[in-house]
Amino acid sequence: MQNKITKLFNIKYPIIQAGMVWNSGWKLASAASNSEVLGLIGAGSMYPDVLRQHIQNCKKATSNPFGVNVPLMYPNIEEIMGILIEEGVTIVFTSAGNPKTWTTWLKDRGVTVVHVVSSVKFALKAQEAGVDAIVAEGFEAGGHNGRDETTSFTLIPMVKDKITIPLIAAGGIATGASMLAAMVLGADGVQIGTRFVASEESSAHDNFKQMVVNAQDGDTQVTLKELTPVRLIKNKFYLAVQELYKQNPTVEALQTLLGRGRAKLGMFEGDLDEGELEIGQVCGLIHDIKPVSKIVDDIIHEFEIAKNNIPNTF
Amino acid sequence: MQNKITKLFNIKYPIIQAGMVWNSGWKLASAASNSEVLGLIGAGSMYPDVLRQHIQNCKKATSNPFGVNVPLMYPNIEEIMGILIEEGVTIVFTSAGNPKTWTTWLKDRGVTVVHVVSSVKFALKAQEAGVDAIVAEGFEAGGHNGRDETTSFTLIPMVKDKITIPLIAAGGIATGASMLAAMVLGADGVQIGTRFVASEESSAHDNFKQMVVNAQDGDTQVTLKELTPVRLIKNKFYLAVQELYKQNPTVEALQTLLGRGRAKLGMFEGDLDEGELEIGQVCGLIHDIKPVSKIVDDIIHEFEIAKNNIPNTF
Repeated sequence: MQNKITKLFNIKYPIIQAGMVWNSGWKLASAASNSEVLGLIGAGSMYPDVLRQHIQNCKKATSNPFGVNVPLMYPNIEEIMGILIEEGVTIVFTSAGNPKTWTTWLKDRGVTVVHVVSSVKFALKAQEAGVDAIVAEGFEAGGHNGRDETTSFTLIPMVKDKITIPLIAAGGIATGASMLAAMVLGADGVQIGTRFVASEESSAHDNFKQMVVNAQDGDTQVTLKELTPVRLIKNKFYLAVQELYKQNPTVEALQTLLGRGRAKLGMFEGDLDEGELEIGQVCGLIHDIKPVSKIVDDIIHEFEIAKNNIPNTF
Repeated sequence: MQNKITKLFNIKYPIIQAGMVWNSGWKLASAASNSEVLGLIGAGSMYPDVLRQHIQNCKKATSNPFGVNVPLMYPNIEEIMGILIEEGVTIVFTSAGNPKTWTTWLKDRGVTVVHVVSSVKFALKAQEAGVDAIVAEGFEAGGHNGRDETTSFTLIPMVKDKITIPLIAAGGIATGASMLAAMVLGADGVQIGTRFVASEESSAHDNFKQMVVNAQDGDTQVTLKELTPVRLIKNKFYLAVQELYKQNPTVEALQTLLGRGRAKLGMFEGDLDEGELEIGQVCGLIHDIKPVSKIVDDIIHEFEIAKNNIPNTF
């Protein structure tokens, strides 16, 4: 299948492994790229020098294209952008910020730029800013989440109707059937996060990977909407947040409870009680930890099965 | 396409027109059934004698199968169930209550019973109760909504994995492409609500139909979670609820603000400021008011197009 997305990134399958804080270092990204999908390093949880090391390691580990996901709210954003260019990164996914700020600068330096959005309005703004493609991420996605709570099922076709550049769907996609469904709804490709957390090459702590495997429907929720809405597993920390909500807390009180470093504590260090465990609703469909190559093979196989199972006609 | 759902209801297309308060009387249900999908009368907004009249009118208006949707929390539930049997209704969709209470009673009287759920757990309970099929309704759906906030994209495959009886997907479906996507995810058929609100035969007020046509992504939200979570358009009443939330209101205060009759006031009487306007996220994809027969024709046509657009292979 050659399509807009495979051509844009020069990959075999129109699948992007999402850049995720504390989960997607060079090991995951290079494994994804070596499996002929697009691997992304998640810069959001890396100091600049750590990111540089991951990029250098990734270049050594794969000769296939890979990219870096950069949240634009990153405090050292100028230093980060400089490193991307110095290290010859040619694909950048930006999120959580205004696409106008960096798109032209990156494109002037030969970088393919993709921006992540959660609404039609932001999709149009990103297209106007000149990005090469858009990731439309639905409410079911793990981690930071849009305020409109629009789900993949409705977001994909609504964005597709309004933009002309390639569209990558994210949120709720972990299997070949869901990849096909996203493409039926109008996506040219898919970005997959949660499924790759439960991979051998993810840098997530084993405790967290196992919790993802055990999670079922209803085990995640979007909370902390007064700060940045985030979907996480309903663990002890989540319940403490809900207790605080009963007291009509100020934004500052929520910020104090959240503190700093909880995402690392939970996902990277494996503290399942006190950590912030960001994962998508689709965790309920994930029952094993597999190598990335096997995950990709299975998705492609399931995609073909789902295609062949489509009823012939009315 | 003959499948489990077309056979269960003896209809041509595996599509159910959702039973919706203040929108789906005998005119809508009979138009749907005459278009060879399953029409449902929504009993939730009808006094018992009004419901009886709608059933009698529906029988006169179509010779095709139709059904009635009954919220099990209905205050006069025993009288309602008696009327369904007296009037020879053979298909009943139950929602908002325990499927154990009425399923056996209805099935003993020859009725096909379907129960609406929003989670895997409730799907399993409904299957155990002996229902003939399940409607799995995602977070994007209009009106009353599940507490887990699980979206169609993840709910459909998760429910499909666990149940053996036929599965109808609901929430976010308004086009042939979304019908195909739901079936790719594991559904045997689809229940469509929002699209049929904006039909000529819906009993919704013209003001409300026009508001649905004008609505875009981000214009609905789920609120009033302390009472029953409900997805509605963000109108003046919705904003008043959000203002009240800032004061950390009691459940009683929310109930007082909601009052009685707001759904009728908004959807049936057309007061777009003070009414409760229940609609699904997919309203952003609906741009016209059409006759039901045209809606069904278009969905089937779009379904075929979406099927033919599927990429051939990798």
